Amino acid sequence: MTTVHAFAATEAHGPLKPFEYALGPLGPDDIDIAVDACGICQSDLSMLENAWGIAQYPFVPGHEVSGRVAAVGERVSHVKVGDPVGLGWHAGYCMTCEQCLGGHHNMCATAAQTIVGRHGGFADRVRAQGASVFKLPEGLSPGDAGPLLCGGITVFNPLTQFGIAPTDRVGVIGIGGLGHLALQFARAWGCRVTAFTSSESKRQEALDMGAHDTIDSRDPEAIKRAAGRFDLLLSTVNVKLDWGAYLAALKPRGRLHLLGVLVEPVELPHIPMLFGQLSVSASPVGSPLTISRMLAFAAQHQIAPVTEHFPMDQVNDAMERLRAGKARYRIMLDRH
Amino acid sequence: MTTVHAFAATEAHGPLKPFEYALGPLGPDDIDIAVDACGICQSDLSMLENAWGIAQYPFVPGHEVSGRVAAVGERVSHVKVGDPVGLGWHAGYCMTCEQCLGGHHNMCATAAQTIVGRHGGFADRVRAQGASVFKLPEGLSPGDAGPLLCGGITVFNPLTQFGIAPTDRVGVIGIGGLGHLALQFARAWGCRVTAFTSSESKRQEALDMGAHDTIDSRDPEAIKRAAGRFDLLLSTVNVKLDWGAYLAALKPRGRLHLLGVLVEPVELPHIPMLFGQLSVSASPVGSPLTISRMLAFAAQHQIAPVTEHFPMDQVNDAMERLRAGKARYRIMLDRH
Repeated sequence: MTTVHAFAATEAHGPLKPFEYALGPLGPDDIDIAVDACGICQSDLSMLENAWGIAQYPFVPGHEVSGRVAAVGERVSHVKVGDPVGLGWHAGYCMTCEQCLGGHHNMCATAAQTIVGRHGGFADRVRAQGASVFKLPEGLSPGDAGPLLCGGITVFNPLTQFGIAPTDRVGVIGIGGLGHLALQFARAWGCRVTAFTSSESKRQEALDMGAHDTIDSRDPEAIKRAAGRFDLLLSTVNVKLDWGAYLAALKPRGRLHLLGVLVEPVELPHIPMLFGQLSVSASPVGSPLTISRMLAFAAQHQIAPVTEHFPMDQVNDAMERLRAGKARYRIMLDRH
Repeated sequence: MTTVHAFAATEAHGPLKPFEYALGPLGPDDIDIAVDACGICQSDLSMLENAWGIAQYPFVPGHEVSGRVAAVGERVSHVKVGDPVGLGWHAGYCMTCEQCLGGHHNMCATAAQTIVGRHGGFADRVRAQGASVFKLPEGLSPGDAGPLLCGGITVFNPLTQFGIAPTDRVGVIGIGGLGHLALQFARAWGCRVTAFTSSESKRQEALDMGAHDTIDSRDPEAIKRAAGRFDLLLSTVNVKLDWGAYLAALKPRGRLHLLGVLVEPVELPHIPMLFGQLSVSASPVGSPLTISRMLAFAAQHQIAPVTEHFPMDQVNDAMERLRAGKARYRIMLDRH
C-alpha cells in the first residue's frame, strides 16, 4: 500500500493543507507517476472554488503533471519505470464508446478526469490509466512540460480538429496561460499570428512568443480595422467580450473558437454568421493521439510554457498569485 | 432594346403592380432568361418589407427562377438559346477575389444579388451573369426547379461544406420551404433523418418527404429525450428557440447550423459547447459548383420542391399566402 502525500482543500475556497491518502493495488492498465512538478491551471482554481459544482472533498488539485513512472500495471507496455511522463485533464477513458473507438477519447462521456472524483497532481504521486499517461519526448524540459498536457493540448487541438492550414491567419485573444502557448503553436504551425491583448506590458512578450503583430483588445476601433482578416480566432478569456466585433474580424468561412470558460450565455449576431458562413465553437483538451502529436510537435519546435516556479509546499501563495492574475504565464509547483 | 414586363413594389410593404423596364445591351458574359416560373422565398417577403434595409424601389422580387435561355453574350459557352435554366440568389460574381478564386463565389463580397439593386424574376425576363445561370439537368421538372436554386442550395450547401457523412444523423428543425427540401436531401444523402415540427398536420408529410421519425418541437421533454443523438441539426426557422436544448441533442463534435434568418442575438450556453466540441454556424446559398452538384443530385434522386402554383398576375395573393404561413411548401408563380 502506497501512501500519497498531497495537498487538499476540505471545502470550497478552503486553503490547501497537507493530506495523505492510500493508493490501493495497482490495476493492470494503471500507471503510478512520481510527481516532479505540476502546473496550475485556471481549472484548478475553478474547481477549488467549486465554480462548476462538481468538486468532491478532500479535493487535491493538479492536472498538468510531469514526473517519472513509478509503477506500471501488467498490461502497460508503452512506458517503463523511470520514464519521464506527463498527465493532463483526463486520467482514463472507457475505450469502447463511439467516441473512444473513433479516436475522440476526450469526448468520452465516462472519461476519468484527474481532479474530478479522484486526487490530482498536487502530490508526490498520482495514478492514472496508461492511455492517459504520455512519455515526454526528448527535447522537452521535464520540469516545464506539465502545462502542455492541459493548456498546451487545449490550444493545439483546434489547429488539428478544424484543418487549420499554415497559410491561415490566426488571432489569439487573451495572452495568459493558454494564450501564450497558442501564440507559439500557431507560429510553429506556419500561420500568420496576431495577439489580442489588453495589457501593454504583454505586447512585446507576445511578439517574442510568436505573434507577428498585436491588437489592443480594449480598442474597438483597432478591432474594426482588422475586419475580414482572420481564418481562426482562438479566445482564451473567461469574460464576456463583444463577440460580434470579433466575428467581423473573421474572413468568410472563418471560425471563432472559445476556449476560456464562459459562464454567461454567448450572444452572437446571426446575420454576419449567415453571410460569412462563420462558425463559433469550443472544445476541451484533446485526444490521446492528438496529445502525442502535440508533444512531438512541441519538442520539434522548442515550444514550452513560460513558467514561474514555487515549491509545492507554497501552493497557497501560488494559487493566490494565479487568482490575482499575476502569473506570467504558468505557475509550476516543484516537488524538489 | 428589350422591354421587361415585371411586378414591382414602389415602397416597403407596398403591393406588387405591373412595371416595365428596358434592358440595355447584353454584356459579353450575360444571359437573358425568359422566365417560365419563379418560386417565392421568405427572403422575397423580407425584402418586400425592407426588413434588412437594403431594398431599392421600384423593387421586383424573385430569385428562384426557372426558364429558358433567351439570349447569350458572346463569351457565354455553357448554355445556348432555348436551354432550360435556373437562377438563384446570386446574379454574378467578381471572379477574381480570394473567395471566387477559391471556389467560394457565394462568399464574394461584391457578388451581384438577383433582387438587391437589380430587378428579379417576378417578370417575363431576367438578366444575369452566365456563371450564375445553371442548365437544368434532365429529370428535373423545369416548372418546379426554381426553388432548388435558392431554398434547395441553402440546405444542400451545409451537407457538402461540413463533410456530413451518410452514416450521420441529421435533424431538420422547421418543415417549411427550406425544411421540406432539407428532409429530401438529407435522406438521399444516406443519413438517418429526424423532422422537428410544431405542426401535427405536417408530421405525416415530413415522413413522406424523407424523415425516418419526427419530434414535436413544442415538447421540451421530447427534445430532452433526443439528447446526444444528432451529428447535424439544420434549423430553418426564423424565430428564437431554446438553442441550449438543441445543443443538448447533438452528439459530441456535432453542429447546429442556423439557416433561418434570426434578427435577435443567438444565445448559447458555452459549457456544453466546450465539453462536446460543438459548433454553431450559418451559411448563405452555395457556390456555382455546389449548385451544379446539387442540381445533378436532385435529378438523380428525384428531389423536388412540393409546390403550389399561382398565375404570376396573382402575385399579391400568393405573397399573402406565404405571409400567413399557409404555403405547403413552396409557392410558384407561373407565367403561362
